[in-house]
Parts: sequence; structure tokens; C-alpha cells
Amino acid sequence: MKQIKGGVTAAEGFLASCTEANIKYKDRTDMALVFSKIPAKVAGTFTTNVVKAAPVKWGMNIVKNNEEAQAVVINSGIANACTSKEGDEANEAMAAAAAEALGIPTEYVLTASTGVIGVQLPVDRITAGAKALGGKLDASLEAGHNAAKSIMTTDTYPKEAAVEFEIGGKVITLGGMSKGSGMIHPDMATMLSVITTNLAISKVLLQEALSEVVKDSFNMISVDRDTSTNDTCVILANGLAGNVEITEKNEDFNKFVEALSYVAKTLARNMAKDGEGATKLIESTVIHAVSKAQAKILAKAVITSSLVKTAVYGSDANWGRIVCALGYSGVDFDPEKVDLYIESVSGKLKLCENGTGCEFSEELATKILSDEEVTITSDMKSGSEQATAWGCDLTYDYVKINGDYRS
Amino acid sequence: MKQIKGGVTAAEGFLASCTEANIKYKDRTDMALVFSKIPAKVAGTFTTNVVKAAPVKWGMNIVKNNEEAQAVVINSGIANACTSKEGDEANEAMAAAAAEALGIPTEYVLTASTGVIGVQLPVDRITAGAKALGGKLDASLEAGHNAAKSIMTTDTYPKEAAVEFEIGGKVITLGGMSKGSGMIHPDMATMLSVITTNLAISKVLLQEALSEVVKDSFNMISVDRDTSTNDTCVILANGLAGNVEITEKNEDFNKFVEALSYVAKTLARNMAKDGEGATKLIESTVIHAVSKAQAKILAKAVITSSLVKTAVYGSDANWGRIVCALGYSGVDFDPEKVDLYIESVSGKLKLCENGTGCEFSEELATKILSDEEVTITSDMKSGSEQATAWGCDLTYDYVKINGDYRS
Repeated sequence: MKQIKGGVTAAEGFLASCTEANIKYKDRTDMALVFSKIPAKVAGTFTTNVVKAAPVKWGMNIVKNNEEAQAVVINSGIANACTSKEGDEANEAMAAAAAEALGIPTEYVLTASTGVIGVQLPVDRITAGAKALGGKLDASLEAGHNAAKSIMTTDTYPKEAAVEFEIGGKVITLGGMSKGSGMIHPDMATMLSVITTNLAISKVLLQEALSEVVKDSFNMISVDRDTSTNDTCVILANGLAGNVEITEKNEDFNKFVEALSYVAKTLARNMAKDGEGATKLIESTVIHAVSKAQAKILAKAVITSSLVKTAVYGSDANWGRIVCALGYSGVDFDPEKVDLYIESVSGKLKLCENGTGCEFSEELATKILSDEEVTITSDMKSGSEQATAWGCDLTYDYVKINGDYRS
Repeated sequence: MKQIKGGVTAAEGFLASCTEANIKYKDRTDMALVFSKIPAKVAGTFTTNVVKAAPVKWGMNIVKNNEEAQAVVINSGIANACTSKEGDEANEAMAAAAAEALGIPTEYVLTASTGVIGVQLPVDRITAGAKALGGKLDASLEAGHNAAKSIMTTDTYPKEAAVEFEIGGKVITLGGMSKGSGMIHPDMATMLSVITTNLAISKVLLQEALSEVVKDSFNMISVDRDTSTNDTCVILANGLAGNVEITEKNEDFNKFVEALSYVAKTLARNMAKDGEGATKLIESTVIHAVSKAQAKILAKAVITSSLVKTAVYGSDANWGRIVCALGYSGVDFDPEKVDLYIESVSGKLKLCENGTGCEFSEELATKILSDEEVTITSDMKSGSEQATAWGCDLTYDYVKINGDYRS
């Protein structure tokens, strides 16, 4: 597996475009289209929030009933959630306008929206935008990059990742894009993410691979513990690589899962790093836990604790808050076994051994915690399982961004 | 039931004192003692965090094994959590020093600590402080008030409440104190709180009343979703009112529960209002839910959402975030039935009807959300149960306080 440049247009047969539809943001692109030249196997995971946005309901239906799809049309600025029947109609109009421009059936067009909840989409501008997108499609990496930029809301940079690997002598390419960066606490679901590949694979296995990979990537990040109404991750596999279609869980399937996992984790990690107001990525790894499930719960408890997040923001090695977060996670463990470490490019430091504090250099601790990427390792010394979760610090800017988001 | 002035010394036979033990804070009192002239029935609830502070383990043991207790000694500045055997010994030394000064058995002395985790108590200063407290006991309301002040950490004001009610012609007094104001997310437990009464009641019923009341008061507040290692709520009932001892769940028991509920909710509400960095109290009431349990989960989801908290801070009527929080709470409901209201002394406004936005005056919405106490009502229109939870806004000052707490 080789990391390559690009995103949704990295794989053969995928094109993208973006446009200024003036939905909410001014002087920037705010709609994107991803298109496969031929129908592609489709799979997806969606928010578990009871309140589901119109595009989520639309997409769940397509993934459930269709073997294939061919396009994803996305807008930023308005989430089209809590918009009732009028919102469903606006969503269908957006899909239909794109379908008409592309000359494909409406049910081949997935949709995704992100932005403020409870506001209706401007149907005229969104349908005009969808039509314009059809005429701007381009297979270049730049087109994919511009699409990734157009779906940003409070993100400060676009998120893309792509890899190449081989199956039966054929080069498979897999690329994706995603956006954050607030209301991020995916739960059996993910934030907005579109992944494309030229792999030939059955729909059933495509869905299985995605569902599996999402658990350890997108579902292991949190910015603010708020699970969105719009979480969507879709993957399109158009088979243009010409490999023998994967229809069983063989070695080829495992190669694909590994590549998909890499792309998903890279996108997820960047969503955490670029969390609203964040200045640092916090990677929380739990080792020697009794079970994988417990390791995941413990790792997530650390990165979701407001007190851990503010301590990291202040570069304060207040390790008691980490033990406290592990303690209320719901997992039973022996506190007198826990060792804690912090690590960054500046070095590694043990802060706590067997549940009580160690002597450590406050100077080095502050240096480590001042770096852009900080790893907190919790060694439970009780088993052999481990898990990693990604989050970010809690800063003044998070409060600023969210104290006045609508205006 | 009549609301009266005072706190832990309001009830007959209870004395309090405070002293400057110089544990962490300078130029202020940081230890308190609450004492009953005669042994009192004791009950308590404690943190469910797996990581339990030394005083929590000590107190759980006393409440489990003793019918009675007579004193509570408390320090602020250091939590005595994650301190291993050395911490247990320091805690016992603190109890023993107070017991010696009071001439009572050590196992009659409950302890509580609050402050930074993972630091050892200075045993010499804490035992000197405990002894000094014994000589300063006073039955005045002022002594109770000063005790409430000495247990504060990041609190900006002391929390006290007291009521009087009658049972069989005897006047029963019930008073309490508590402290917040970070790491507040009580879960089947509470933050530091001491409640006293001159009521005669069996230990079993005292515990039952406390456990019941805690569920709808302390367990329904949250400042930052972090369940502390030190949560403790103890109640002492010395029987000096001279009523016939309550030994069954009769009308007298109900009167007591009502009074206890009032005191606990008043203290809890004030802990939420004075949450770290808070400028506003958020009261979240869920009505017409299918069950009480669901109503509680829904009400708590609203006050724990960082996005709701920052929107209230910014006086922004971003109601979509409220619906979103209800949606990921884990409770299943029909989003298209939900109505939302905000209310304060400035008025009441419907923001959302049947899951979609209403026309409303942004001017009045901003005015309501700018008030010190804001009520959010979520009408599920699905049943007849309701619940209320209390929280606060998330502000720059929360980040400031917690970005550098240890120094």
C-alpha cells in the first residue's frame, strides 16, 4: 500500500466539481459534486441521531435499496435538518437537478448537507447550483481538492487522503474527502465523508468493509461530544481497475480493508486535529485493556473530557483529570494499576505509576504538551487489547465560534 | 414547609467551624468542621467513579457499617484522590485528629476533600487544622456560613439552604451546604454536600430518603460532564426535635422527603448556576415524555451539550442544537412532534413546533437568552412524564480557569 496525492478524484473514472451557489456563505464555493463515469457499487454509514437530516434519510434509502449509485451532491451552509416535508422536497429537488444535468436516474444521486439546523434550503439556488455542477466536472486532482474545499464549514483546511495498492496485478486506487469540524462525536456513524475507488467488489462486502473500518476511524473521534443530525459516510466503487470482483473475505478483501482503514483514519485524524477552535491534536491510546470494547470506551473518555481538553490547551500536565475520566467511563478497572504517559516530538514522560503520581520534569511536560500533536497513553496493565481515539483541545476559540454561529 | 436562613447550623444541636490550614490556598479558610452535639443517624451517597478518593472510601465504609456518626471534617485545595495508601493514611490522620479534639471515636468522623487530584495532603498541616477546628465550634448561622465559604474551590459564592416544617407538633429544621464548581456531572452520587437535621428518623429511612432525593436534584446537574472522584453527600439527623422517630414510610416521611428535596434542589441549582466560568443558569425541562427515565435523559442531554451551552452564552437562539442533543440522547422519539420554548423573566417564546422552526422575534429571543436564568422547555407531546435538569453556559472563563488549574 502506497500513500499518494489526491482525494475523491484519485481513482480512475471519478470526476468532481464545485460551484458558488450562494446558499449561506459569500464569495466562496459551497456546493460540490462527485461523479463516477459508470454506475458504482454503493455503501454508506449514517448518523444514529434520532433526528436525521433530509439528505441522511434520502441516502439511507438509496444504500438500502440500490445496488449502485453514481453521484454525490453536497452543499455547505445549511444542514437541511429539522426542516420537515419541505426539507425532504428541497433535498429531492437537489438530487433531481443533478441527475438531470448528468443524464442519470435521480435515485443514483446521493445527497449531503452541512451547516445550520432548522433553516430551509433556497430551492432555486440549490437546483441552479446542482445543474451548474454537472457542466464543470473534471477528473483532475485539483477538481477533487476544490470539491473538498467547497464542503467546509468551520474547517480551516480541506481533508483528503488517497492510497494505491495491488490486487491480482491490477492497481487499485482509493481516495476520499471529509469535513468537520464542530458537532463531531460520530456514533456508529461518521461526519460528512465521500470515498471513491476503482475496485471491483460486491455491494455486500463493500458495506461490510466500510462498516468495519468506520468503527476504528470516524467513530473514534470527538470534538465536542455532539453527535450530528447529518453524519454521512458514503463510498462508491466503480470497478474500473479491472480486478476480479471481490465476492468473499479473502486476502484481497483484507488488502482493501487495510487501505480503506488507512484513508478513513487519516481523514478522521485530520477532522479531530482541525476541530473547532483546536490548537492541538490529542491522540489517546489505551493499552493492555481487558477487551477491545473496554479499550475503546476508555480511550474515548479521555479525549471527550472537557477538563483533559482544557488542561492540554493550557499545556498543564494535570494527569489526575485523565485518571478521573478513565474512572467515570463506565469500565471497571483497578485504579492502582494504571500508568500514564504523555508523548510528542519533544519526548515521552511517565506522569503516573500504579495510579499515583511520579516525579517528573514539569518543564519537559509543558514542552510536550505545547506541541501540535500530543499522545496520551493509558496502560491499564490488565490484558492485551488496545485502542486509539482522536480529539482536540478545548479553547477560547471553540467558545467564540459557537457562541455566535448563526450570524 | 417554610424556607429559612442558614445552612448546616440551622438545625438544633449542630455546630460548625472553619480555619486556615494553608493546604493550598493562601489567606483564606480551607478547612471546615460540622459537629452534632449528640451522635446522629448517618446516611450518604458517593461517586460512582471507579477512581474513588480516600475520603470517599472512608465515608462509604462508615455509612455502610455505622448506625451513627457525629462529625464531618472537610478540606479544600487537595482532593486526596489517586494518592494510594499514603492518601488513605493521611485521611485517617485527619479524621483521628478531629476525633481527638472532639472526644469522640474516629469512626464517628466522616471526611471530605476537594481540589487537585494526585497530590498528597500535608499531614502536619491537615491534622493541626483538624485539631484547631475542634476549639472553634459555634452554633451560629454565621459559623455555618463561614464553613460553607471555607470548602469553596473555584466557586464564586457559598451554597446554603434551610427549611422548617412540622411533624406531630414538633418543629423540624433541615439545612445544608455544598460546593461546586468544576468536574460536575454527578452520577448516582453528588458533589460535596453536608446536610443536617434535628429530625428523629431511622437510619434505613434516612438513607432511603437521601438516595431518592439525590436522583432528582444533585444527579440532575452538570457543569462539564466530568464525574468527580470525590462526590460526596452526607446527612446527619440527631433527633433533637423530639418527634416520634420515623420508622415507616408514612405522611411524616413524605413531609421530610419534600423538605429534603427542596434543600437538595436549591443547593444543586446553585452549583449549576455557579459552574466554572458560568454567566447563566440553564434550566432544561422536558414535558410530556413517555417515561420519567426518558424525560431525565432528554433533559440532561440538553444541558450537557457544548453547542447548546455556547449558544446560550452567545444569547443565540440556535434551537437546532437543542433538537440535535435530544436526538442523540439515546431516547427514541418522533422528532416531528417536538415543540421548543425558551423562557426567562423577560418572557416566553416558542422557537420550534412539530420539529421545525417557528417565526419568532430574534430581538425577544436574544433578550430572554441574555438573562441570568434561562429555561428551555422541550415538549415531546408523547406522554405525561416530566423532568428538570440544571446546567450553565460554556464560556471563555471556563477555558481560562481549567487551562491552568494546578498553578
